[in-house]
Amino acid sequence: MTPSSLLYPDAFVSPLAIDEAVRRALDEDLGRAGDVTSTATIPENIRAQAAMVARQGGVISGLPLAVATLQMLAPDIDITAHVRDGASVTPGQHLLTIAGPARGVLTAERTALNFVGRLSGIATRTAQYVDCTAGTTTRICCTRKTTPGLRALEKYAVRCGGGFNHRFGLDDAMLIKDNHIAVAGGIRAVLERARSRAGHLVKIEIEVDTLAQLDEVLDTRLADAVLLDNMDVATLRKAVERTQGWVVLEASGNVTLDTIAAIASTGVDYISSGALTHSAPNFDVAIDIEA
Amino acid sequence: MTPSSLLYPDAFVSPLAIDEAVRRALDEDLGRAGDVTSTATIPENIRAQAAMVARQGGVISGLPLAVATLQMLAPDIDITAHVRDGASVTPGQHLLTIAGPARGVLTAERTALNFVGRLSGIATRTAQYVDCTAGTTTRICCTRKTTPGLRALEKYAVRCGGGFNHRFGLDDAMLIKDNHIAVAGGIRAVLERARSRAGHLVKIEIEVDTLAQLDEVLDTRLADAVLLDNMDVATLRKAVERTQGWVVLEASGNVTLDTIAAIASTGVDYISSGALTHSAPNFDVAIDIEA
Amino acid sequence: MTPSSLLYPDAFVSPLAIDEAVRRALDEDLGRAGDVTSTATIPENIRAQAAMVARQGGVISGLPLAVATLQMLAPDIDITAHVRDGASVTPGQHLLTIAGPARGVLTAERTALNFVGRLSGIATRTAQYVDCTAGTTTRICCTRKTTPGLRALEKYAVRCGGGFNHRFGLDDAMLIKDNHIAVAGGIRAVLERARSRAGHLVKIEIEVDTLAQLDEVLDTRLADAVLLDNMDVATLRKAVERTQGWVVLEASGNVTLDTIAAIASTGVDYISSGALTHSAPNFDVAIDIEA
Amino acid sequence: MTPSSLLYPDAFVSPLAIDEAVRRALDEDLGRAGDVTSTATIPENIRAQAAMVARQGGVISGLPLAVATLQMLAPDIDITAHVRDGASVTPGQHLLTIAGPARGVLTAERTALNFVGRLSGIATRTAQYVDCTAGTTTRICCTRKTTPGLRALEKYAVRCGGGFNHRFGLDDAMLIKDNHIAVAGGIRAVLERARSRAGHLVKIEIEVDTLAQLDEVLDTRLADAVLLDNMDVATLRKAVERTQGWVVLEASGNVTLDTIAAIASTGVDYISSGALTHSAPNFDVAIDIEA
Amino acid sequence: MTPSSLLYPDAFVSPLAIDEAVRRALDEDLGRAGDVTSTATIPENIRAQAAMVARQGGVISGLPLAVATLQMLAPDIDITAHVRDGASVTPGQHLLTIAGPARGVLTAERTALNFVGRLSGIATRTAQYVDCTAGTTTRICCTRKTTPGLRALEKYAVRCGGGFNHRFGLDDAMLIKDNHIAVAGGIRAVLERARSRAGHLVKIEIEVDTLAQLDEVLDTRLADAVLLDNMDVATLRKAVERTQGWVVLEASGNVTLDTIAAIASTGVDYISSGALTHSAPNFDVAIDIEA
Amino acid sequence: MTPSSLLYPDAFVSPLAIDEAVRRALDEDLGRAGDVTSTATIPENIRAQAAMVARQGGVISGLPLAVATLQMLAPDIDITAHVRDGASVTPGQHLLTIAGPARGVLTAERTALNFVGRLSGIATRTAQYVDCTAGTTTRICCTRKTTPGLRALEKYAVRCGGGFNHRFGLDDAMLIKDNHIAVAGGIRAVLERARSRAGHLVKIEIEVDTLAQLDEVLDTRLADAVLLDNMDVATLRKAVERTQGWVVLEASGNVTLDTIAAIASTGVDYISSGALTHSAPNFDVAIDIEA
Repeated sequence: MTPSSLLYPDAFVSPLAIDEAVRRALDEDLGRAGDVTSTATIPENIRAQAAMVARQGGVISGLPLAVATLQMLAPDIDITAHVRDGASVTPGQHLLTIAGPARGVLTAERTALNFVGRLSGIATRTAQYVDCTAGTTTRICCTRKTTPGLRALEKYAVRCGGGFNHRFGLDDAMLIKDNHIAVAGGIRAVLERARSRAGHLVKIEIEVDTLAQLDEVLDTRLADAVLLDNMDVATLRKAVERTQGWVVLEASGNVTLDTIAAIASTGVDYISSGALTHSAPNFDVAIDIEA
Repeated sequence: MTPSSLLYPDAFVSPLAIDEAVRRALDEDLGRAGDVTSTATIPENIRAQAAMVARQGGVISGLPLAVATLQMLAPDIDITAHVRDGASVTPGQHLLTIAGPARGVLTAERTALNFVGRLSGIATRTAQYVDCTAGTTTRICCTRKTTPGLRALEKYAVRCGGGFNHRFGLDDAMLIKDNHIAVAGGIRAVLERARSRAGHLVKIEIEVDTLAQLDEVLDTRLADAVLLDNMDVATLRKAVERTQGWVVLEASGNVTLDTIAAIASTGVDYISSGALTHSAPNFDVAIDIEA
Repeated sequence: MTPSSLLYPDAFVSPLAIDEAVRRALDEDLGRAGDVTSTATIPENIRAQAAMVARQGGVISGLPLAVATLQMLAPDIDITAHVRDGASVTPGQHLLTIAGPARGVLTAERTALNFVGRLSGIATRTAQYVDCTAGTTTRICCTRKTTPGLRALEKYAVRCGGGFNHRFGLDDAMLIKDNHIAVAGGIRAVLERARSRAGHLVKIEIEVDTLAQLDEVLDTRLADAVLLDNMDVATLRKAVERTQGWVVLEASGNVTLDTIAAIASTGVDYISSGALTHSAPNFDVAIDIEA
Repeated sequence: MTPSSLLYPDAFVSPLAIDEAVRRALDEDLGRAGDVTSTATIPENIRAQAAMVARQGGVISGLPLAVATLQMLAPDIDITAHVRDGASVTPGQHLLTIAGPARGVLTAERTALNFVGRLSGIATRTAQYVDCTAGTTTRICCTRKTTPGLRALEKYAVRCGGGFNHRFGLDDAMLIKDNHIAVAGGIRAVLERARSRAGHLVKIEIEVDTLAQLDEVLDTRLADAVLLDNMDVATLRKAVERTQGWVVLEASGNVTLDTIAAIASTGVDYISSGALTHSAPNFDVAIDIEA
Repeated sequence: MTPSSLLYPDAFVSPLAIDEAVRRALDEDLGRAGDVTSTATIPENIRAQAAMVARQGGVISGLPLAVATLQMLAPDIDITAHVRDGASVTPGQHLLTIAGPARGVLTAERTALNFVGRLSGIATRTAQYVDCTAGTTTRICCTRKTTPGLRALEKYAVRCGGGFNHRFGLDDAMLIKDNHIAVAGGIRAVLERARSRAGHLVKIEIEVDTLAQLDEVLDTRLADAVLLDNMDVATLRKAVERTQGWVVLEASGNVTLDTIAAIASTGVDYISSGALTHSAPNFDVAIDIEA
Repeated sequence: MTPSSLLYPDAFVSPLAIDEAVRRALDEDLGRAGDVTSTATIPENIRAQAAMVARQGGVISGLPLAVATLQMLAPDIDITAHVRDGASVTPGQHLLTIAGPARGVLTAERTALNFVGRLSGIATRTAQYVDCTAGTTTRICCTRKTTPGLRALEKYAVRCGGGFNHRFGLDDAMLIKDNHIAVAGGIRAVLERARSRAGHLVKIEIEVDTLAQLDEVLDTRLADAVLLDNMDVATLRKAVERTQGWVVLEASGNVTLDTIAAIASTGVDYISSGALTHSAPNFDVAIDIEA
């Protein structure tokens, strides 16, 4: 089984990126001397039966990294996957069945779980947000507030949970904020300047705080999307009315499980939240060694 | 100012590790085309005054990484630090004063904040745990449940918050768990096997679930520390009594802000918690551009 | 002087990317034993005066890489730049004046020139294409047909020459081609499928061969841009008429210095050419050692 | 099929170098989010039949890199090679037959073609030069004027086209130029200095502009080869006569398809040209998806 | 056969570390042009039978690296191992039987032998030291005086020879030396300071020159181990008597094949020697091509 | 002071290679937690005066790496060098005077010494060999039997000791051995085959065991050098007589301090020895902290 075959079908993580993330994580855990405990206490020919088990309900993400971790330390391991990334699981559900050398399984255990725990935590939190938008066309999306070094994987986890991705970095779209506007001399000036330099495959979004600013943006017809920053629900509703679909509207600020449904009800196209990636609690998952 | 001069004085992060973490994070955010927004909208000779400001109270960690990020994109930047890592701050407190090229500051902003947000989140949560142990000799420590690729930095953040570090990886101490015991044929057998292979600078800790197992360990005189897994407070208290200081005792399981004081009151030497690193909420911090 | 200060002001190359490209190129040229000729024949304390000189007219790109190369081998070198990237120069014009250790200058010479030669070749060819569009609003842009490993730099060189950038990779915009259309079951189906999965900052372009296909695309209102593949000038003109500005139009195929003016006269928004990057002849540039 | 089995049999590229070049090129094209178009529009279980086809005649180079690229993104791909590197092909000739997952093939397509296009361009141009020397013993060779980061591959492509390699870097032979001569105090002085420091497996070549300088070199008996820089055909002929085979003679300067035959007719041993690598036009090659 | 299956069963080297060490060593030997001799003189389809043979007696270490080297250059190679790491061999004993492409075997030969030669040299020297301690409980251990870049492998070789490992780096245990003592204000002060900052899985060793210092250390009960630096045998014997097993004792200084037995007879727990790793003579091993 | 300014003037090590070697060595020693001892016991503002001192006589090599190591951990360190690489020193001679932060100096100490100890060991051993050739024109040279990962530095150390370098790898010259001869069908056949494929800057050496083989080689006039393998002194003398300077002669086998003078007296051009690099004992050097 190749790790990539367990990826969420609607998203992409390069096999090279999986390989690199796993190597870095294992280097970090193995250090120079490796698993001194298992090497000392477990004879090398002992084999183990094990299961990766969800200890809570939620949405799974990170199985390809777990599998790659196990395979890297135990090339002759047998792994059967019962779900793939993006699956909703219940507490106690078996994710993987594993048969292989006991030393290799124990050595890989924590690294494999750290990937699944973190990414499933994000996927699960995302799915909770998405559930709150049921019955609307509003989409949940993430931000660039990700863990340094893990952005591609964390954005992938958001996709597994049913969310959408905002920019992956500073380079794949323009997001004009208050400072850009101030330096460039106002909304029209900054949008003209941006448009004159952007290629045709670069979208331009601009952040506004007030409806007056929104009107100014709409007037230019130069933006693809507008980020409505920290507006209350009533204001958001007015923003949607005025915009009439001419640009994509993204609401941000004060996004919690308690507020999402109301925000979504305004008709904004996207609700973005940094907490999806920077503050999602870890998903509880374990590897049980059965024999 | 060198980034390292802002490190918490009682802990170490290599300047090479800071450099590498910052490069990886910037590569991830800059992609191939860099900050297309600032490049398009801000003339290159505009300079900015800015401040990094805490939006909440807590303990700071990550300033060396933030400074290194800013310096990498703007070699001629001026940064004054008002606190260093390990400092307790109040909401609104200024951490850094920054004067430099506007493009460079805006380009570095998110990456710098992602470091400080994550690491200060961990330091702040650790400090909360440590506060709960006031009046006891019990220490708070972390585990290997860290974000893949960030272990050294996250363990450093735990130190900034007043906590201690458990193993940094599988290689720097032995931690014998139930599976090792089972395969090796019991507690005495596994400890003898471990001791016969360990060098004299490798500590050996063993995990037990019951007081009977603890007695068995104490009887061998072969362990340096015992991990008491998921014991209730009454049982922990008995464990401390029986051990009488012969080995270090570490309690784990059910560790929350609500339970720590009680666990610490039993007299265990260490309380360990994976949530310190894997589920600490992000610390709220921003860069305000003033001019 | 920092290398970045010689970048074309309207484009971005990360200082990390400059550093990495220079290190790789120098590693490749220095091998294990370094410049055995200069080490053997030139005493280490001899200093040299030198000039980097254009041997032909054109548009310059790559000076930051040349300067970084020289500085890496001779930290105490003095370099004065007479132009920066994006400048139009005449044959014989001096680009840099260099004073430093003779060994270091001679060792860095070829690597520095290889960067400037290749990137200025692309910038110069781009500027020639751009000149052919004078009096129109048509922009010239590049493709993903770049030299493996040099994409970000080659796309930067296109910017220096006055061109625009198409996608930097497979990830920063969607470009739907005939195979995608065929598998997905036609133009409307593929666009709906793409739209349903794309985030709001991802543009969608679709390639068509006929006006009938163009009409089909326009009818969906789901594309941001259309690539008109290999259409003759008359057909392109009709495409522009029908589109009436509803989507961005990009013409590709049969783009040469002889055909650009005619293609631009049709009113298409962009003309793209792989030859800008994959077949631009090298720019003739040398370092003259004066003393 | 291992990629290395398609290498030109008389030249070597390390499997590690192939692997590294392919990873770097794919990283560059996939970015953080990968092939967003194919992931969105093509179901993951669709398979494709495809052929890599030459769109022009020439000499092929780069197939091992193309195959490695395809295999990296689609481990279960089936590839049949109809030619290997070094083969002369006609327009329309099939190079590879490919059967594999449609997503993987489409994602790898451009990177695979960029390798074959660039390297076959160099091989084809080299072969044209070599053809011009038919009937003589003169060999065509390249220089260090290569694309930064691709030297080993570009020098390999020259071998595929029937050419020979000059130095791979500054370290594998001495090439004494005018500046070295000037600093060291003349031809005899520089050669003595070089010889006294060079090991016995380092060849020494020296560049001269005039026959008088050539005589001076020959007089010392200390050089292995002489580079005759920018001499006209009559002078080259005299140089060959005087040398009488005592050293290898290499002609450089003014080397074009129009001048090679005449230069070769003088009897020089080598004709070197930077344009082989820095200005060879791309070879036209495509992947046709058949089903 | 996976390289890891030939590791000494009681020690660990990560498959990632093997892979990385082999790649670096091959890169270093292959350079840009590879094995120009074998490529030029040996047709690619010629196969070879070969044997890796010990030319002296001793203890073997490094076979996994040799096998990985051969497999990397010749994926279809057949290797049979007659011993694994840690084996004692006699002069002339066959270690590996190899059947594969002649070019690949010859290209890998020197790199494979360099690994086995260096590591078996260390293992053999270690085994000689260990033999001198026969009949005692004293263990031989190495230091941090290792070849830059090879520490993990050299420490592994010490294990293959029957020795034990001291610290792998500055981070996995504390070793307090005279300068630390002086700055911190004496033995008790430095140990208290160290203990207050060390986590519970970090051992603390302290270096002493005199018995008086040893007494001071024992009095604190704060050290896990004491390094007795450059003491003569009589003094070591007294140190053992006084310590009565309360801490681990390590003797260092003047450790040679002539002195070890006497030092071991004192009853110290460990004898450490830098010469094991920094000055062990190479083990004589060759690859004989048989056909 | 830049590290490179302490290099032996007649040899080259790239500043990039110095930087990379130091980073790798420090990573290996610092691990994830760094110098836990100095961090715990030495306040960060304490400064130290120290000297690097030779504990034995010999030839120094490696100071640039030692200085780079110290500077990397203590940017504000002051170092005065009293000698540079290639210097002959007496026991007790001061090499460097160091003033800087005590923590940084202690943390860098072992890594800095490991570089100087190993490389000066090689330089010293080389100088002893060179001394034995006094009064002859015979040169001492090394082989490819170097420590994996350190070849460029070890070959540099040979130069510091007055020796010369053989091939740096498989790629920079041809060395035809018995197996190449056997497969290719004899000495003339293999040399013709090699010559037909080698570029003009690649030297060809061939190994022979007998004078008859030497004659065969001389007869072809196709070799640049001949390696005389394991011949006794009388036979070497005959080889020199027969060759009369037509090719370079290199003697190898049975090269020890006792045999070199006699071998050199035969008039061979080079004596090569693997033991120079693979078995040179470490040079004894220390850093004395003075205050």
